[in-house]
Amino acid sequence: MAGSVYGTLLKITTWGESHGKGIGVVVDGCPAGLSIAEADIQTYLDRRRPGQSKFTTSRREGDGVEILSGVFEGRTTGAPIAMEVRNLDQRSQDYGAIKDVYRPGHADYTFDEKYGFRDYRGGGRSSGRETIGRVAAGAVACKLLESLGIAVSAYTRSVGAIEISYDSFSMEERWNNRLYMPDAQAAARAEAYLEEMMARKDSCGGVVECVIRGLPAGIGEPVFDKLDGCLAKAMVSIGAVKGFEIGDGFAAARANGSGNNDSFGLTSEDLDGNPLMKEQIVKRTNHSGGTLGGISDGSDIVLRAAFKPTPSIASPQATVNRQGEETDICIKGRHDPIIVPRAVVVVEAMAALTVADLLLLSMSSRLDRIQAFFNK
Amino acid sequence: MAGSVYGTLLKITTWGESHGKGIGVVVDGCPAGLSIAEADIQTYLDRRRPGQSKFTTSRREGDGVEILSGVFEGRTTGAPIAMEVRNLDQRSQDYGAIKDVYRPGHADYTFDEKYGFRDYRGGGRSSGRETIGRVAAGAVACKLLESLGIAVSAYTRSVGAIEISYDSFSMEERWNNRLYMPDAQAAARAEAYLEEMMARKDSCGGVVECVIRGLPAGIGEPVFDKLDGCLAKAMVSIGAVKGFEIGDGFAAARANGSGNNDSFGLTSEDLDGNPLMKEQIVKRTNHSGGTLGGISDGSDIVLRAAFKPTPSIASPQATVNRQGEETDICIKGRHDPIIVPRAVVVVEAMAALTVADLLLLSMSSRLDRIQAFFNK
Amino acid sequence: MAGSVYGTLLKITTWGESHGKGIGVVVDGCPAGLSIAEADIQTYLDRRRPGQSKFTTSRREGDGVEILSGVFEGRTTGAPIAMEVRNLDQRSQDYGAIKDVYRPGHADYTFDEKYGFRDYRGGGRSSGRETIGRVAAGAVACKLLESLGIAVSAYTRSVGAIEISYDSFSMEERWNNRLYMPDAQAAARAEAYLEEMMARKDSCGGVVECVIRGLPAGIGEPVFDKLDGCLAKAMVSIGAVKGFEIGDGFAAARANGSGNNDSFGLTSEDLDGNPLMKEQIVKRTNHSGGTLGGISDGSDIVLRAAFKPTPSIASPQATVNRQGEETDICIKGRHDPIIVPRAVVVVEAMAALTVADLLLLSMSSRLDRIQAFFNK
Amino acid sequence: MAGSVYGTLLKITTWGESHGKGIGVVVDGCPAGLSIAEADIQTYLDRRRPGQSKFTTSRREGDGVEILSGVFEGRTTGAPIAMEVRNLDQRSQDYGAIKDVYRPGHADYTFDEKYGFRDYRGGGRSSGRETIGRVAAGAVACKLLESLGIAVSAYTRSVGAIEISYDSFSMEERWNNRLYMPDAQAAARAEAYLEEMMARKDSCGGVVECVIRGLPAGIGEPVFDKLDGCLAKAMVSIGAVKGFEIGDGFAAARANGSGNNDSFGLTSEDLDGNPLMKEQIVKRTNHSGGTLGGISDGSDIVLRAAFKPTPSIASPQATVNRQGEETDICIKGRHDPIIVPRAVVVVEAMAALTVADLLLLSMSSRLDRIQAFFNK
Repeated sequence: MAGSVYGTLLKITTWGESHGKGIGVVVDGCPAGLSIAEADIQTYLDRRRPGQSKFTTSRREGDGVEILSGVFEGRTTGAPIAMEVRNLDQRSQDYGAIKDVYRPGHADYTFDEKYGFRDYRGGGRSSGRETIGRVAAGAVACKLLESLGIAVSAYTRSVGAIEISYDSFSMEERWNNRLYMPDAQAAARAEAYLEEMMARKDSCGGVVECVIRGLPAGIGEPVFDKLDGCLAKAMVSIGAVKGFEIGDGFAAARANGSGNNDSFGLTSEDLDGNPLMKEQIVKRTNHSGGTLGGISDGSDIVLRAAFKPTPSIASPQATVNRQGEETDICIKGRHDPIIVPRAVVVVEAMAALTVADLLLLSMSSRLDRIQAFFNK
Repeated sequence: MAGSVYGTLLKITTWGESHGKGIGVVVDGCPAGLSIAEADIQTYLDRRRPGQSKFTTSRREGDGVEILSGVFEGRTTGAPIAMEVRNLDQRSQDYGAIKDVYRPGHADYTFDEKYGFRDYRGGGRSSGRETIGRVAAGAVACKLLESLGIAVSAYTRSVGAIEISYDSFSMEERWNNRLYMPDAQAAARAEAYLEEMMARKDSCGGVVECVIRGLPAGIGEPVFDKLDGCLAKAMVSIGAVKGFEIGDGFAAARANGSGNNDSFGLTSEDLDGNPLMKEQIVKRTNHSGGTLGGISDGSDIVLRAAFKPTPSIASPQATVNRQGEETDICIKGRHDPIIVPRAVVVVEAMAALTVADLLLLSMSSRLDRIQAFFNK
Repeated sequence: MAGSVYGTLLKITTWGESHGKGIGVVVDGCPAGLSIAEADIQTYLDRRRPGQSKFTTSRREGDGVEILSGVFEGRTTGAPIAMEVRNLDQRSQDYGAIKDVYRPGHADYTFDEKYGFRDYRGGGRSSGRETIGRVAAGAVACKLLESLGIAVSAYTRSVGAIEISYDSFSMEERWNNRLYMPDAQAAARAEAYLEEMMARKDSCGGVVECVIRGLPAGIGEPVFDKLDGCLAKAMVSIGAVKGFEIGDGFAAARANGSGNNDSFGLTSEDLDGNPLMKEQIVKRTNHSGGTLGGISDGSDIVLRAAFKPTPSIASPQATVNRQGEETDICIKGRHDPIIVPRAVVVVEAMAALTVADLLLLSMSSRLDRIQAFFNK
Repeated sequence: MAGSVYGTLLKITTWGESHGKGIGVVVDGCPAGLSIAEADIQTYLDRRRPGQSKFTTSRREGDGVEILSGVFEGRTTGAPIAMEVRNLDQRSQDYGAIKDVYRPGHADYTFDEKYGFRDYRGGGRSSGRETIGRVAAGAVACKLLESLGIAVSAYTRSVGAIEISYDSFSMEERWNNRLYMPDAQAAARAEAYLEEMMARKDSCGGVVECVIRGLPAGIGEPVFDKLDGCLAKAMVSIGAVKGFEIGDGFAAARANGSGNNDSFGLTSEDLDGNPLMKEQIVKRTNHSGGTLGGISDGSDIVLRAAFKPTPSIASPQATVNRQGEETDICIKGRHDPIIVPRAVVVVEAMAALTVADLLLLSMSSRLDRIQAFFNK
């Protein structure tokens, strides 16, 4: 177990380094019969691609995905789905600065300690490009969830101290600005702040929020494989994520029970306001973020991931080299002043993979439903 | 995979319900040769036991642990270590109120949705008593880590809005107050606040912080099994945890790269100020909380878990019953006004289990070390 | 991963040593709603209990099982089912002979090499008593399969060179003789042969065969988790098993394709000769033993496990002691002259656990069925 | 878990269909620092390649492997090693015969039952070409084991009823004949027999034997993850394998304890007859095939896998089509009259992957060795 395999029933394996021959993923356990095409995957990959705005790096990666197996006549066959993106931009470069010097905030030092040496080209395995495999697999998971009426939607909640307002929140708006913020005014302020960061050769952090709508109650396993616990691992496994919240998160630690508990009630309307056939149980509020005891309760799953600032900054920083000498480093090249916008689709991917896996796992929780499944 | 198994090499399986015959755990994968006795385990269990102060429930549980296997002549044999605590307090009770009514903030509703019915006695499997198995296993993990020079220490960082001050921080102080707070003044204020909560028939949340000292660099797997990602799952798997942070956590999302990056430097002193044989690489600050790229960097691991308020409160709450009718519920019996103090040792247990597992996994990362291990 | 956990969705963890405090198992992942009682488990345990005939050891073990969790009001709740059998017969014994001397054919030497020391009392963890946990868990799996119309039946196929004849085969007969042989005449000859073995202070091996009837087509995963591959591991994981066959097994290696291939045809009768609603596809023969490409094909699964002779024999044997000196050993006490009869129920248990796990896993293979399951 | 992932610490994921874009594998968990090149992998792949003799199919596959990640400057980095072989021979073909008709002895019917439809081109995922990924990964495992002094060697033991003789056994000879038989005379007779099979439009089975030399004692986990149990699964997971034996296998079931037990003794010579520094414990015989209690005992591991005859034969066979009608099928094209020679390297690959994984797992069995590893 060296960390590049994720999931139990829907199991993915990612591979590839920033400046190697390519990046890819194998998805094992996708049910047979799901319609999927390279264009579906590419749509997701394009959302994490650099060079889309002045706040993302201009390297032209292409990132054209190829599906190599597991899909036949437009549908998944149940066999592993191998997908890969070949690196186009592999020209020999001068890695002198980062080959022997440990960049602060990066994994150079820890990789050397763990493995004895490392592929130093562009960050190697610890590069943000590693997420290409996650996003390609996540696109499959999103398609699978969609076919079951479940939608996963992530967006930028904050850039530095600038946060969206739920008064002017519009899920559609996130497609209209380069920061994927669902609030046009906040996005404008955030863009100005990022300009300032770039001028100061500095960077900043931010928060991604994700909502999962349509998930039935009963998903997630008690004790160690709680839905929120698995989502926490999914989020913190994304490079640069330093915090996770479900529902009210850290605010709940300052709240009182009388205010934090979500009362149950009955409703005769579904999520979109349409009348239901019969009354169903709902929570009147959603401080819990959609889980109780680690199991989905039928309301929206709401989670957040806190991203640290981009560690690659153009200002000089004190550090140490492989030879154990103190030195300075100025990181050259163009780097995003913030990780968050390109990470939005990664959050969506990881959330979708996690939820899809737990959804499949939940099918074996009740004998009556298993008997019905096998017609016994 | 129904969620009661945790870990890869150090694998534990917990079992038991609040008012069933007992609670237990089986630890598979503990290396042979570790000295362990029931008293070692009991010390940890006593820290989570109720009835220790006016802020914890008065039920007399006993919680005397019995080791049933895997230990011979005082040392672990490499075979599974089964430990159990029999429930003494099993007298027939009146569960009328919670048998058919869904308590807000509890898992009653989601268990019914998932399994079709539930053991409603005292919360059944979703009771806080489930953590007995975790703590017993965690005690073994702590002993294992200690034998390798690694110490895991958790404490109460905040109660509601009352937070410890690092100016008056004393790790020893946490043993002196009933809230396990390492700051005597904050503890006094927190106790007063909890008295107020009890008087108002309400409850409150809080934050547990945990420091892991002595962990060598190189622990944690890149990509999906990052040290911090695994710790996130470990923490959020604890009932009532709604948020997780490593290092600066959510504050990092508001920070700048120039301030958040930890510079590397050289030192000739170890953690306790003793001179080292040769200079070694250290980080000058620890905003990252001890990991880079998900791998330990040799500095302290610092993490936090946010606990929601105790959901069981004596005030009346609106809810629904199993028959699908709206109703009110007043939760009887004595309940802790806060979960945090008894959860401190659970955080320690889960952190220790996670770190020990990843430590063992890390042994196979380098061929040169494997060859040395097998004398080749 | 230290080997005492088995299964993916239906996951069991066994614990306990021959002369420790007890033996037990935790079953995680059993679907909720299955009727189960201690008497159900005990029936299976009684079949592996010693002291039932002159060919099994006379130690009085009791082996009374206690269910400690996971069952409420007579049905499984979906929570882990902990079961244990306390060892009654723990009086201090003289283990001098086996404490320091490596018994040929036993795991004494390899345990010492692996773990540095061992619980030498009665074989410790490598004792046949370890199978108590498997059988208790297997009883649950058998009940689960029964509720889905699937029957697992093992029996003694051969004792030394004495093999059952399919001309006089009677599945019911296996309950009538102490060797669980479904052929009365073969059983009589086998008993005489065993008498001879005992007189010669020797032992012998034999073969257990197992038939699984009623398994639907489509169970088992292609490539690495084939149904027959998983059954092979299940069987060879039983102490003393040295070989595994599915269908024609090693005879297939001497066969021709024209004779070994099973033709497909149509039938309008089910397994018991009752008319079917519509014609269904069947194999005309079953050389394959019920699998094609590692996936069940709807016909009977037929497998065999070869057991070596009981290694504990009363005759003197050359060996070495812990001090690295050559010596002789005569193994005292009463030992079964053959392992097979008591292993029949262990084969059944392991087969049932394996099939039940793969059956649950197979539920997520097709999107159309998943959509139907979730009513989408 | 859909079956295309194998291993715990050394974990591989294979993908690809017979007539899809390619076949590949990702190896996660290979220790850093192992020298590896595409030529090392290709050597193994060439051994399973068709078109090498008149007994193997003439399709020109190329099978040129490309390493896409995880190797830098000629050595493994600890990151996943992705390897792939693109299918060159993808011209449109007429699959009419097998598209709708279930071939006896193949997985067509069971794939349809499991997944609802299948990639019928050349067997799709259940084709023998699937083993390319196993062999590429196995080559890495073999290199890893070699670096630790462990050699895995498989060969053809029998073709139909023609078996090698240990009197004329020569491990080198297996490279001299097209059947990989280590006995020139047996090979000559086997070739004549295969000519006969081809003339009769029939096929035959055979047995592959594998010897693992140099494995230290202590490898393999007691109870469920026994070395021999894991090897059994590894072997039976290979398509067409119907039986597995370790050591004396099924012959042990007909043996007596006095003859089957391996006595322990002392030796001052190593495997190659060189004097040892000090006397060490050895078994005088090796009926057990190198394991005791599922743990390696320091002697050679000896195992066998029984392969059924090639199911694709040119003679007409009765079967059923997808429409549920009875029909006949004559399988066109050139097919090997026996699977065994090309499977020899697959057996080696699966044995090496299994042993390497358990070897890495065994590193955490003893605290004293772990303390030494971490210099504590």
